Amino acid sequence: MTPIEDLETPAVLIDLDVLEANIARQAARAKEAGVKLRPHAKTHKIPGVARMQLSAGAAGIALAKTGEAEIFANAGFNDIFLAYPIVGAGKARRLLALSDRVRLSVGADSIEGARTLSEVFAPAGRRLSLMLKIDCGGSRVGVLPEHALDVARQIARLPGIELVGVFTHAGQAYHAGTPQSIAAIGRHEGDAVASAAGRLRGAGLEIREVSVGSTPTAPHAMRVPGVTECRPGNYVYHDASQVSLGTCALEDCAMTVVATVVSVPAPDRAVLDAGSKTLSSDPLRPRPGGHGFLLGKKSRVSRLSEEHGVVDVVAGDSFQVGERVRVVPNHACVVSNLHDRVFAIRGGRVEGAWPVAARGRVT
Amino acid sequence: MTPIEDLETPAVLIDLDVLEANIARQAARAKEAGVKLRPHAKTHKIPGVARMQLSAGAAGIALAKTGEAEIFANAGFNDIFLAYPIVGAGKARRLLALSDRVRLSVGADSIEGARTLSEVFAPAGRRLSLMLKIDCGGSRVGVLPEHALDVARQIARLPGIELVGVFTHAGQAYHAGTPQSIAAIGRHEGDAVASAAGRLRGAGLEIREVSVGSTPTAPHAMRVPGVTECRPGNYVYHDASQVSLGTCALEDCAMTVVATVVSVPAPDRAVLDAGSKTLSSDPLRPRPGGHGFLLGKKSRVSRLSEEHGVVDVVAGDSFQVGERVRVVPNHACVVSNLHDRVFAIRGGRVEGAWPVAARGRVT
Repeated sequence: MTPIEDLETPAVLIDLDVLEANIARQAARAKEAGVKLRPHAKTHKIPGVARMQLSAGAAGIALAKTGEAEIFANAGFNDIFLAYPIVGAGKARRLLALSDRVRLSVGADSIEGARTLSEVFAPAGRRLSLMLKIDCGGSRVGVLPEHALDVARQIARLPGIELVGVFTHAGQAYHAGTPQSIAAIGRHEGDAVASAAGRLRGAGLEIREVSVGSTPTAPHAMRVPGVTECRPGNYVYHDASQVSLGTCALEDCAMTVVATVVSVPAPDRAVLDAGSKTLSSDPLRPRPGGHGFLLGKKSRVSRLSEEHGVVDVVAGDSFQVGERVRVVPNHACVVSNLHDRVFAIRGGRVEGAWPVAARGRVT
Repeated sequence: MTPIEDLETPAVLIDLDVLEANIARQAARAKEAGVKLRPHAKTHKIPGVARMQLSAGAAGIALAKTGEAEIFANAGFNDIFLAYPIVGAGKARRLLALSDRVRLSVGADSIEGARTLSEVFAPAGRRLSLMLKIDCGGSRVGVLPEHALDVARQIARLPGIELVGVFTHAGQAYHAGTPQSIAAIGRHEGDAVASAAGRLRGAGLEIREVSVGSTPTAPHAMRVPGVTECRPGNYVYHDASQVSLGTCALEDCAMTVVATVVSVPAPDRAVLDAGSKTLSSDPLRPRPGGHGFLLGKKSRVSRLSEEHGVVDVVAGDSFQVGERVRVVPNHACVVSNLHDRVFAIRGGRVEGAWPVAARGRVT
């Protein structure tokens, strides 16, 4: 096995010990809460990692894009939820083909969007399982709770569609300042979707799944009575934003980027060969704070251009041209999407190169 | 030929009429200024586009990464400048192999970095052409002008190395507020590198190339006496940041992203199926201002998550679920790096799908 030192930089490393611990911890948490765990596989985009999650007890996987589902279906996965409002005839036709071989469900948050799916499934004599997205405060997609019943009724009447559940995602947790506020958001997330499910059931709709998401809120939302499923994604790797949010410790970050110092043009500045093409330009959450922690250093990556990570060197740190450093990126999911492969490591050695099979599947 | 309407969204479109005009305009500008044009091919990462640039008169291409040079060398390009301080034995060995078949030059800004290349080229009985990077105010990489002569002398003494020129890049232009300040930065860029070349020549060093860069500053820097070469990249596509900087008009943007409105959850909010995985999270330059212009709309993409582009709908605009929109992204180069292919269009029809051959070459 290759030592990490022999890898060309920059390279994305996944520490297997940390990965396995992260997977086991979330699986135990979901088991204890009595909910199904359906990890969002967007974080890694790697069938082999999703298999580890299933082996630890996950019931299936969540994804966002039809093209991602195609990759995972080809890799043998047969229970996939596209937690995204899929819209359009072209994608509906691909979903129809997928539903021949996969237990598939798909998000929706509008009658107009759901109709584009209905118009393909109904003539084929098939029914697509839809989950209604509820906005629990993230102000992204999802029907507002007060409109949930009206939209659900209309969707449930569409031919070729079976409304099977409700789901939500508390993206606002990534802007929350304290563990207490994250916990409160998580409880609200669970409450919002469980109470929407209650209203829909009260109107005679059969709502089987009540699904929550997000790594920061998962421990709180999954414990709300009525919740049946949890879809965290990031926990598998974690990142600097999760550390800053208090979701995990630095040692729980399975993903690091090994980079080389290519320039020390001034005493207070060092430049790495990892820029936004490697680390992405996603900001640190919940508050801006550079573009990556450096293991064993107090300095951070302060600014990025495509191929340059500029470190403002703080007192006590020093950097040498040619030195290798390890960067904990702000956002692991987007780093996965930038790279054709990541390297699985254990104890300082490379155990394998994993293709990021579903990278770049935008449609 | 397929109509654009038949493409699955999101998809990156390159308008060939605009592309050809952009290539011709920059070629004419360089010819008039009497400098060689060496486009930075990072913007497109596509050999076919670089061939169009060469056909219009470009002398060669610039790239940043050894892996990018390998892709372009395999595609038949034989004059490549890696405008980046390459460091390390592994990359030096790959450069040695490349230099068998390509007229290759490489950036350097430190004796320590240059030595890692020397230690591979000298034992092989070969010489690598190095260009010394000068910092003209960007505070990224590059020796400060006052240290240029000292570093150049040391590099020039290394076995296996031939110091052939100096280069710079005025990245600070992307933060400049007015066309006047960009012009001033461009003139300073040319002056800084030309005067460094003068000092090195005065000390007996043979400096043949004096190279400037950047799309905003190119028209100004290339006209400075003593400059021999210009390396703009972005001009080939342009983007919302170039429009905001005043470098081009909106109609000069060859790259757009076609996206579908997947949700209109509130009257003042519409959500596109293009998020940071498609558009990147790079901010608008020179000042933040959302994440993409929408053709024919006053609203902008206001915030992004990976698969969601959230539009704050301004008065007078309206969006329907299923509607297609065209987004002019903030930063074309990073969009190229996110996508396996782009679609060449002309007059509303798709003429071809171009693989982004050098996408994701991080090492």
